[in-house]
Amino acid sequence: MSLTFDDIKKARQRISPYVFPTPVVTSGILNRLFGHEFFFKAENLQRIGAFKARGAMNTLLWAKENNALTPIVAAVSSGNHAQAVAWAASQLNVKAKIFMPANVSKIKVQATKAYGAEVILAKDRQAADAGALAEQKVGSLFVPPYDHDQVICGQGTACLEAAEVIANLDAAVAPVGGGGLISGTLLAAKGMGVSHVFGAEPDIASDATQSYRTGKIHTLTTSPNTICDGVRTLGISERTFEYIKQLDDMIECTDHESIVTTQWLTHLLKLTVEPTAALSFVAAVKWARRQKSKKRILVILTGGNMDQASRTQVYAQDWLEKGLEQFAEEIS
Amino acid sequence: MSLTFDDIKKARQRISPYVFPTPVVTSGILNRLFGHEFFFKAENLQRIGAFKARGAMNTLLWAKENNALTPIVAAVSSGNHAQAVAWAASQLNVKAKIFMPANVSKIKVQATKAYGAEVILAKDRQAADAGALAEQKVGSLFVPPYDHDQVICGQGTACLEAAEVIANLDAAVAPVGGGGLISGTLLAAKGMGVSHVFGAEPDIASDATQSYRTGKIHTLTTSPNTICDGVRTLGISERTFEYIKQLDDMIECTDHESIVTTQWLTHLLKLTVEPTAALSFVAAVKWARRQKSKKRILVILTGGNMDQASRTQVYAQDWLEKGLEQFAEEIS
Repeated sequence: MSLTFDDIKKARQRISPYVFPTPVVTSGILNRLFGHEFFFKAENLQRIGAFKARGAMNTLLWAKENNALTPIVAAVSSGNHAQAVAWAASQLNVKAKIFMPANVSKIKVQATKAYGAEVILAKDRQAADAGALAEQKVGSLFVPPYDHDQVICGQGTACLEAAEVIANLDAAVAPVGGGGLISGTLLAAKGMGVSHVFGAEPDIASDATQSYRTGKIHTLTTSPNTICDGVRTLGISERTFEYIKQLDDMIECTDHESIVTTQWLTHLLKLTVEPTAALSFVAAVKWARRQKSKKRILVILTGGNMDQASRTQVYAQDWLEKGLEQFAEEIS
Repeated sequence: MSLTFDDIKKARQRISPYVFPTPVVTSGILNRLFGHEFFFKAENLQRIGAFKARGAMNTLLWAKENNALTPIVAAVSSGNHAQAVAWAASQLNVKAKIFMPANVSKIKVQATKAYGAEVILAKDRQAADAGALAEQKVGSLFVPPYDHDQVICGQGTACLEAAEVIANLDAAVAPVGGGGLISGTLLAAKGMGVSHVFGAEPDIASDATQSYRTGKIHTLTTSPNTICDGVRTLGISERTFEYIKQLDDMIECTDHESIVTTQWLTHLLKLTVEPTAALSFVAAVKWARRQKSKKRILVILTGGNMDQASRTQVYAQDWLEKGLEQFAEEIS
């Protein structure tokens, strides 16, 4: 059964005592440079540093309402979802078991443990999945990263919040990994009367774009080597594809565009922006350039987690020194 | 004549239609790690990306009230003060002439021009000062970076705002360059009943600390080569020394401490933090460790401007990967 705008509103009410109503920031310099008005929803300032806190919290609270919250909850993740489930569980006084592949960086393990979770390091991703499945079989609630109605609804609350404080939005954009965020964003945006919603994806990880264009789910066979580590998912799900089909567009971006944009957004907005978050703005600019009039665009900044390897790659060349006009030229 | 708490309140009223009431952010992880409660005033999210917008705007508005605002205002700066005066002038529809030494980075020139200012590149700092003096001689208002009552009052509004929303603060800390920010912070904090106010300074640029300890203004002869570029000022002024004398302490920090802390604050707070801003937190930790009970400390994050050279230096080694306990050990 399809979700509705009403489900997003319920999710918002459910999670509001726990999550931050993150600020919307703007940059006069960027608006002048590109000739449109951009509104950045700063989910990097959300609990755990990413929007993922919303979906995880909504799922656990919804489970609690339905007497389905178990003393232990499980998740598989080497990214923000791990911290999101760990944090949400700690808020509701249940235990989180987070299964991670052993090659995950120490900082991610530590951050997850900092929220009180037990971290189980498995040999590889498959072993981590198997561990979580075993945990689920003994009765623990499993929180998937995107393929769950309540995860989708939770993620949609970011757009809902933003659209309530920004009048007359013309469009909203978010990156697409597994599709949880963009599905929730679509539901929230359309419910709030935002006419255009589109997704952003790296061109070297364009499974969702190809699914959108061909009308059939396209899945990658190996994890794409994009700098945008938040969207390395191999494929979207039937559940999220239902919403992705309804998007106004899917826009592909290069890693180069994401890198240059990460530098500039970090500099101009003074927020820690991860390359996946920068994708949203790259796509926003590409979309805006096709429009005949000035548009007001909501850009969802997903998070601000960047490891040293990514940072080194992002700052290998100094794009700030080349100036704003060059920045505009780098987005094609 | 000395300034009073009332002057800070007036400044706040004056500038509030123009500046952002920046958020105060916290980190549960940092609070647990160090055993105290830290409240970060995020002035990197202020107009132009730094607290300097407050002092510049207050000075121009105060001049306007006193019929002293001129059609052209002048400043000398290669840093945030340049953008602050440019921005404030643009808001009041006067022209800003900003004199900079020619070796300033292109990005700073561009940012200042983006606010509509005329940038005059002089041979060196002395020539820039001479240019501004000539401009002042033909009747233009000169806005100094710290040695001005209304600049001090403007900078103090950041602490005032924060102390109004955080109950029972025990202490407040800010970095000391020329002393404008710390002077205003002292006035605001004491007015709000915050019992301890202290300044932070790099140990290799400790002119204010030495002035504080000896009771006599100590001036550096050459610009110190600290990563904390916001506090490379050669000396404080008689005006700011009056307030610096009244501080509870001046705490020296190493560049190494500032670098490690810049990485961790950027990561945990998801804010672009410049090394000068990190100084505040280093000093806060050092002060807190000397206390016998848990304290609530306001940490003023001054700004988030970092050029490529500084970024390379800050991220030369990966401190995040070494974990939180190691972070705590790096601050001595």
